[in-house]
Amino acid sequence: MSSLLSQIHSPDDLRKLSSEELLALPQEIRDTLIRTIAANGGHLAPNLGTVELTIAIHSVFHAPEDKILWDVGHQSYTHKLITGRADRFDTLRQKGGLCGFTRRGESPYDCFGSGHAGTALSAAMGFQAASELHHHHEHVVAVVGDGALGCGITFEALNNLRNSCKSMILIVNDNKMSIARNTGAVSRILSRILIGRYYNGVKRRAKGLLGRSSLGRRIIRHIQSIENSLKSFFVPGMFFEEMGLRYVGPVNGHDIPALIRTLRGVKMQNIPVVIHVVTEKGHGYPFAEKDPEVFHGIGRFDPKTGKSLSKSASPSFSQVFGESLAKETARRPSVVSICAAMALGCGIPESYIREYRDRYFDVGISEEHAIAFAGGLAANGCLPVAVIYATFVHRALDCIFHDICLQNVPMLLCEDRCGLVEDGPTHHGIYDLSFLIAMPNLVIMMPASESELPMMMSAALDSCKPCVIRYPKGNSGCPSDFVPSPLKWGKSEVVREGADLSIWCAGRETWTGVAVAEIMEKQYGIQCAVVNVRFLKPFDSDLLKQYAHAPVVTIEDHVKQGGLASIVAGLLAPLENCPRLISFGWEADEIIPHGNTAKIREERGMIPPAIAASIAKSLSL
Amino acid sequence: MSSLLSQIHSPDDLRKLSSEELLALPQEIRDTLIRTIAANGGHLAPNLGTVELTIAIHSVFHAPEDKILWDVGHQSYTHKLITGRADRFDTLRQKGGLCGFTRRGESPYDCFGSGHAGTALSAAMGFQAASELHHHHEHVVAVVGDGALGCGITFEALNNLRNSCKSMILIVNDNKMSIARNTGAVSRILSRILIGRYYNGVKRRAKGLLGRSSLGRRIIRHIQSIENSLKSFFVPGMFFEEMGLRYVGPVNGHDIPALIRTLRGVKMQNIPVVIHVVTEKGHGYPFAEKDPEVFHGIGRFDPKTGKSLSKSASPSFSQVFGESLAKETARRPSVVSICAAMALGCGIPESYIREYRDRYFDVGISEEHAIAFAGGLAANGCLPVAVIYATFVHRALDCIFHDICLQNVPMLLCEDRCGLVEDGPTHHGIYDLSFLIAMPNLVIMMPASESELPMMMSAALDSCKPCVIRYPKGNSGCPSDFVPSPLKWGKSEVVREGADLSIWCAGRETWTGVAVAEIMEKQYGIQCAVVNVRFLKPFDSDLLKQYAHAPVVTIEDHVKQGGLASIVAGLLAPLENCPRLISFGWEADEIIPHGNTAKIREERGMIPPAIAASIAKSLSL
Repeated sequence: MSSLLSQIHSPDDLRKLSSEELLALPQEIRDTLIRTIAANGGHLAPNLGTVELTIAIHSVFHAPEDKILWDVGHQSYTHKLITGRADRFDTLRQKGGLCGFTRRGESPYDCFGSGHAGTALSAAMGFQAASELHHHHEHVVAVVGDGALGCGITFEALNNLRNSCKSMILIVNDNKMSIARNTGAVSRILSRILIGRYYNGVKRRAKGLLGRSSLGRRIIRHIQSIENSLKSFFVPGMFFEEMGLRYVGPVNGHDIPALIRTLRGVKMQNIPVVIHVVTEKGHGYPFAEKDPEVFHGIGRFDPKTGKSLSKSASPSFSQVFGESLAKETARRPSVVSICAAMALGCGIPESYIREYRDRYFDVGISEEHAIAFAGGLAANGCLPVAVIYATFVHRALDCIFHDICLQNVPMLLCEDRCGLVEDGPTHHGIYDLSFLIAMPNLVIMMPASESELPMMMSAALDSCKPCVIRYPKGNSGCPSDFVPSPLKWGKSEVVREGADLSIWCAGRETWTGVAVAEIMEKQYGIQCAVVNVRFLKPFDSDLLKQYAHAPVVTIEDHVKQGGLASIVAGLLAPLENCPRLISFGWEADEIIPHGNTAKIREERGMIPPAIAASIAKSLSL
Repeated sequence: MSSLLSQIHSPDDLRKLSSEELLALPQEIRDTLIRTIAANGGHLAPNLGTVELTIAIHSVFHAPEDKILWDVGHQSYTHKLITGRADRFDTLRQKGGLCGFTRRGESPYDCFGSGHAGTALSAAMGFQAASELHHHHEHVVAVVGDGALGCGITFEALNNLRNSCKSMILIVNDNKMSIARNTGAVSRILSRILIGRYYNGVKRRAKGLLGRSSLGRRIIRHIQSIENSLKSFFVPGMFFEEMGLRYVGPVNGHDIPALIRTLRGVKMQNIPVVIHVVTEKGHGYPFAEKDPEVFHGIGRFDPKTGKSLSKSASPSFSQVFGESLAKETARRPSVVSICAAMALGCGIPESYIREYRDRYFDVGISEEHAIAFAGGLAANGCLPVAVIYATFVHRALDCIFHDICLQNVPMLLCEDRCGLVEDGPTHHGIYDLSFLIAMPNLVIMMPASESELPMMMSAALDSCKPCVIRYPKGNSGCPSDFVPSPLKWGKSEVVREGADLSIWCAGRETWTGVAVAEIMEKQYGIQCAVVNVRFLKPFDSDLLKQYAHAPVVTIEDHVKQGGLASIVAGLLAPLENCPRLISFGWEADEIIPHGNTAKIREERGMIPPAIAASIAKSLSL
């Protein structure tokens, strides 16, 4: 524990530091951040950018009475360090340790949980409105990245701000990035504001000239009446003023005294205010400053060299997606591709982005628009391929329904990060399938091995139907000598024969199933068939019926409610002689925490020996 | 068929009309609209507002080559009348007749389907981007209401416009209403623009004064450089200019020549343009002008008096919700309520809105914000009650997950319009449950009778948990002497005993189940228990197990995949002796059209005699 941080048990202790100590604190925090994230993985660049801002906020406001909401929460590490969690900071993102986002229950300072972008302002408005109703006087502060300003939900909140709240402090952390570089109109507005300062100079000179004559003074009065009436036309931040917030800034986000001065000033005002803070993503760590997207969220790395320590044995599903996308784009002139601020994470190669500048659209953190836009592209002759993390697909579910499935237009949505991920409850991709299985016209596939992904992408594009392909982070773990059989539309693949029991597996759980089958044979003499379902929708119910003479097992990395278990149960229960169904997956009502997914699976019996033992117990073997 | 309309078989025929005929056409169309909607029900006020605008658009643009996208589509009746569907217009909203929204497949002029607000700009951008990629030259026009400008998805599209499209014509139909009166910031921006025209006059006078001296002329040059650099500060429509569109307007939306002039001018420009058109919702029909919310979407009425012809025998679920909300708000100081532009449709009484001005929030068409805002309110000591139509809840599914269920805060979401509705596929409330059953911490209830709704609302608020209550449009149809048993948390209600078979019913399908049971007894001598499930989650699995010795039937007004059928199958299939399950509901892959829901149910065998016959056949009785 470094010397200054060890004195800080709560934000109150910040106020005991001398100004010299306060200015020395950021370096200690940055060292701690780099050391811890190098060891545990996590969000480095966003946190390096908000060290001074966080110190300033906690110096001026009195949490937990004052409410501070961190949008997404991936920039809340400094907040955790100075709100009594420094001594546990080495447990960051470990099972049972600190969460990588804010989380209610972890600390009274985490007044609202986070993980998905764009929700902080809406939630903060709820805090503020409740406070005003109860005649309380706490301050409510929402810290929102400029990337999240492009989220529809943030705009919905802005549009409602004046009607719902008398006061509000919105801090826009402007680092020109959402995760990749921002490109939208709001981002350009923020840039223009910075440039706009020049024109204020011009205006001052113009006023100086005018003031010299009585005619000039009349003109000034005229102009001022126009200015005032049209709400400070010469003031930057017009966009926010138009939305009903008083604009303050821009402020250098790495200058603690300037930040504290600004925040103190704003704290006195009882109106909605936006403070435009300019920060550098990755600030203070040269590798991250140079390549903030790579250091946005990162696995273990060597802090001295910035080099990743995670070894990738074989190409990940994401990489295979990227390569396959490039091939399909080259091969089919009608293919266009869409991502939502996640090009790197989704495996889209930089060379692809350069080569297909006209056919590749990064729409920022705008999943709803991404899908409705795809609907329009498809209805006018394109073959859109969208790629979105499974948990963020939740945002677009209505558009998948309304703008894709009901229109019945060709679109391929590739869902990355399906199943459990280390980031925890907000990021697990274990809920989306529930809604998707109810969608008309939609085809849903899952590859058990990397080599099936290109086959499925090609089949999806050939089909001209709305299709979803779901795959997890990382590798399939399939045997190195595995060669998948050719893909047949709507058909599952039997990867192992066996008459006593059939094990139906979604995606890479096929290899869990194969291991379970081997244990069942060795330990109990039970011959198990293993089926790689491949198509969740349409489901291969003919094959299921062929195996319905014996018990059926399902294994999936999704909640069972609305997942493979539900699909299979729904097909078996109407049979005259329904076989016994034994399902493995997650329970809707259990929130699965963050941490190493292998450990979490082990703890919950989602490993072959435990599954085999559970089957044996169910069947009284 | 009226004389002018009968000459118009396609938009080309508009161009054959004399200017006198063109000006006479709106009255004929209005008469047709009023006559047809009075007989069939439908969206009256929005269509009365867009008669001239639609005529002007189709006079200037050449659909179907040019693409015209109507946001929501509830204002597309005139579009239907002048694109070759006038002779079938009397089939509007009837089974097998014209859809009340645009629908691909109904006509080549309906290039994209609609029903939910806010998607047209995204989809239009897709059309435009595809056109630019293929070097086509069609014009793409999105017609968007000012209410839909508050939707997050429209903003996401605006934010991306300049990056994705070189050109685009966005027509903002500004009628100060979404469905109820608009109140958000964007609405205020539009109003300020109208007022702003005054200041342009002031500016002209100021320029006149300045131009008289050489100093003045220097000043003008300075000011012009500021103006140009900061993108026309004196021009109204700053908001749109900031978002990257050239602003044109405001234009009187009932002046065909002015509209045609404007559209012709815009058509020549190859840049993104927004045309601000001011219309009056309900224009030309005094009853609708006076009360546009009532005439927004309406059942059959007497065109002479404007009086509704639908008789409401007993209070609807919506009315009961409204009354119960008022009681709970009076009784519990922490209750606050949120609706998304649908107060009237959701049964919130005007007296409630007046009385609880501080505790009632109409957030406009912003379902995501509505729920995240509720999350913040709940986390800061309030008990929020939100009410949203089931199909629009799709938009908020991620917020239900991220901002309510994961936070585990108390919130009651009442879902109106569950099940089939006359409006058709975009409006059926038959998909939401699929996702909700997978949500951690969430409780889901459905009342079989109006009198259970207040009981459930009260229990939900007592529980301090995230709760959803789903109920349909209209009445339950329960027997007039039915008295529900007291509500027990997580427990179903047995409304009829019987040992040979149990029928499990969601919500008002309980009365379908009772009728089926009576037929089964009379015709086959089978004694059926009937269970009103009440709680979909947590489900009363103990009771289900008690009935699992005999066949189980489920009846629901939802798709079976992810609905009651899935829940029950998922509980039965793991049993050692799984009973036969026979499920009645909708199939995910069948898109159920618009029209009279009783007829649709009959056609699909969702009426007691057909269900009884189907059960008998399944059980070989």
